[in-house]
Amino acid sequence: MTTQRPISYAAGPGHTRSFRDSAQAFREGRETPREFLERFIDRIEASEDDIHAFVTLTIDSARAAADAATQRYRDGTPASPIDGLPLGLKDIIQTAGVPTQAGSPIYDGWIPERDSPVTAALKRAGATILGKTATTEFAYGSITPARNPYDRERTPGTSSSGSAAAVGDAMLPAAIGTQLMSSVMRPASYCAHVGVKPTYGAIRQDAIHPFSPSGEHVGVHANALEDAWQLLQTLATEAGPVPGSRGLTGPVELPARNAPKRLMRMYTPGWEMAHVSVREAFEDALSRLSNAGVDIVEPGSTPALQALEDDFARADGCVAEVAAFEMRWPFFEYEREGHQFHGRIERLLERAHAITLEDYNTALAWKDGFRDRYVATAQDIDGVIGLTAPEVAPLGLENLGNPLMCSPASCMGAPAITLPALSADGLPLGLQLIGYHNRDADLFAMANWVDDALVR
Amino acid sequence: MTTQRPISYAAGPGHTRSFRDSAQAFREGRETPREFLERFIDRIEASEDDIHAFVTLTIDSARAAADAATQRYRDGTPASPIDGLPLGLKDIIQTAGVPTQAGSPIYDGWIPERDSPVTAALKRAGATILGKTATTEFAYGSITPARNPYDRERTPGTSSSGSAAAVGDAMLPAAIGTQLMSSVMRPASYCAHVGVKPTYGAIRQDAIHPFSPSGEHVGVHANALEDAWQLLQTLATEAGPVPGSRGLTGPVELPARNAPKRLMRMYTPGWEMAHVSVREAFEDALSRLSNAGVDIVEPGSTPALQALEDDFARADGCVAEVAAFEMRWPFFEYEREGHQFHGRIERLLERAHAITLEDYNTALAWKDGFRDRYVATAQDIDGVIGLTAPEVAPLGLENLGNPLMCSPASCMGAPAITLPALSADGLPLGLQLIGYHNRDADLFAMANWVDDALVR
Repeated sequence: MTTQRPISYAAGPGHTRSFRDSAQAFREGRETPREFLERFIDRIEASEDDIHAFVTLTIDSARAAADAATQRYRDGTPASPIDGLPLGLKDIIQTAGVPTQAGSPIYDGWIPERDSPVTAALKRAGATILGKTATTEFAYGSITPARNPYDRERTPGTSSSGSAAAVGDAMLPAAIGTQLMSSVMRPASYCAHVGVKPTYGAIRQDAIHPFSPSGEHVGVHANALEDAWQLLQTLATEAGPVPGSRGLTGPVELPARNAPKRLMRMYTPGWEMAHVSVREAFEDALSRLSNAGVDIVEPGSTPALQALEDDFARADGCVAEVAAFEMRWPFFEYEREGHQFHGRIERLLERAHAITLEDYNTALAWKDGFRDRYVATAQDIDGVIGLTAPEVAPLGLENLGNPLMCSPASCMGAPAITLPALSADGLPLGLQLIGYHNRDADLFAMANWVDDALVR
Repeated sequence: MTTQRPISYAAGPGHTRSFRDSAQAFREGRETPREFLERFIDRIEASEDDIHAFVTLTIDSARAAADAATQRYRDGTPASPIDGLPLGLKDIIQTAGVPTQAGSPIYDGWIPERDSPVTAALKRAGATILGKTATTEFAYGSITPARNPYDRERTPGTSSSGSAAAVGDAMLPAAIGTQLMSSVMRPASYCAHVGVKPTYGAIRQDAIHPFSPSGEHVGVHANALEDAWQLLQTLATEAGPVPGSRGLTGPVELPARNAPKRLMRMYTPGWEMAHVSVREAFEDALSRLSNAGVDIVEPGSTPALQALEDDFARADGCVAEVAAFEMRWPFFEYEREGHQFHGRIERLLERAHAITLEDYNTALAWKDGFRDRYVATAQDIDGVIGLTAPEVAPLGLENLGNPLMCSPASCMGAPAITLPALSADGLPLGLQLIGYHNRDADLFAMANWVDDALVR
């Protein structure tokens, strides 16, 4: 069953406009942030009982925030390009006075006293926080109540499932997620919207429940590429980077379209698993880009690119190995308190008990080498193109599906974007572009061009 | 007024033994961890009313922990080389069920539910936590109630003052501190014991109140160099590194003495401020090391070393600039809640409001260059030798004194050790050795030799 989408990015004809267009309307007095918000609240009232994207709704405070934004636009003093943007936050992100439960009984009803840097930055920028979105336990467990708006018998995908379902259903124009392996990108693929995992470290992660801090990224779900960019920019500037990481800079507006000359095609072992309809959708996109002048390069064309493709296959294991060491805190503490985790966490905890500091150093050294090998390819190619997932949203609400096609960019710390440009078997399918570190603006410029080229 | 020190490292004749010797006695049944603990509790009862090193004492739970350690030694199963070691933790380090107040009224009476990684690691290793030690507000404010055991009219120094005073007075054999600029090293200098600031990232910092996470280090105060090493090793292995940093590895025992061939002499602008008696003490130490065969190299001897000395003078400013950006969270939140900070924090907060992401990126780039220029000198020298502070403990309890001689190693992230090897005007004075990144074991080997050479 496919829901009606009042604001749809992927569906083409259903696409009304981006938040950026609405902000223009706010400035011109044609609409107010409060009116804009109410449309999403209406949609939530119509859909949420079926979708279960939210674990907590904060409609009253969102209305108050939208009223304040309305006044700022009236005064000609909007706080930022995202002033008045309704947002949802994955429920591992701390919000002052609002439950932050991390999908775990350990934090049932827990209400933090203070905002995380991400939350505080969004509030300072004038965003209206509409609620907290469902996540698997500690963003790593197996299941959430959220359902895929394109087929409610299917998962919206992995740990940022609530954020993805809410944006996919147009209950929100944008939402904040986090990604260790694939948790922003893959649900965005399953739920037909833009997902962005920026360069590692671009956005500060304090007061977000930790799992593997050196591998985690704050990411963005949005219905429009320009909104994803402005949200990312606001977070990168206002929340600042992970301490010690280079802050992400770039233009205020979405970078202008810039055609890539050469893109390496990514396979990963996921390609072998991909259904023929999924393969065809990807091959078709490559053909169209090729016809539009992009040189699609096979990994086998040079030893360096083939080595990179070989690395891609090992990324998953490296991310898990690093996580097994880093999760020792706080998970050993929870374990000592007698908590039973969902199976996926329990399995990694077994490795956490066995792993040594030397193992961890070895994994980090491999990760550094992987990153260096990738950075060296920037002389030959403009980035990597691949599927975001080897499948459309799987049936059932378990975190099935496969992170294999997202973990390369996650492991390298390189920025990646998934565009809701493909479909297979009548369901959404994302197209992934991977750029180079700290050049997120260049990746957006390329994604802007690719998106346009595929829609034409 | 100088206190009597039942266990003194620096005083030579007063020095009875290190914890390592006690651990041997525990293994042989000549003493128990509980008996050992009681001697420190006795000292606390005699001294604490005058010194005010602790903000919270946890004597009951320490006794229970010591009894458990006693049983493990009886069973022949000590948990680690520091099993049974009584410790104090700077009061910005979270301890489950015990107040963690960060020297600030904001956290008056706040009791965390869970241990920080450092606390959890120490407990797993069998350490007995005797209490939380006094710190300036958020480890950056101006004043603590703690007094210098060598002269109670003087400060024990900066933000880890409680940890330093407790170890200096032999109320504890060792304690945990933290350092942004000089907060482990300088109080250790003022209070006549070993202070260690390891390579940046060697010890995980989660659930320690953040100020400038990319500049902060967990460090160690100890009466004996061998105890400092085993404590550092335990923390580095059990708590693990800052996620993404290389974990610190090395031998279980203190690395054997290794004579440095060439050490660069550090001045910094602090040298100009140093009293003649302080200068003489340092010059005398250099003469003795020179006589023992160490080539003491002047910065002016090569352009690269002179450039490094010039960098040293800028380290302070760089650490502050980076901190001004990183402190925006959570200090903007505290400010919004109406909190008034001590003056030193307020002054940096002013810069926090003005600093941009570009300024921050510029400061990080300079810091990277500084580090690289230092790393390149490893071809010429074995490390750097300098005073730990340009003065003995100043009169008064304000955080006076000067961090200029410690901020170079802090800014570079290089490991540094202060040895209680000097004195001036009848008060303790530290000798600083700076090593190279991730070679903390080599620095300890060198410090072990220098310490021995100066005592002979």
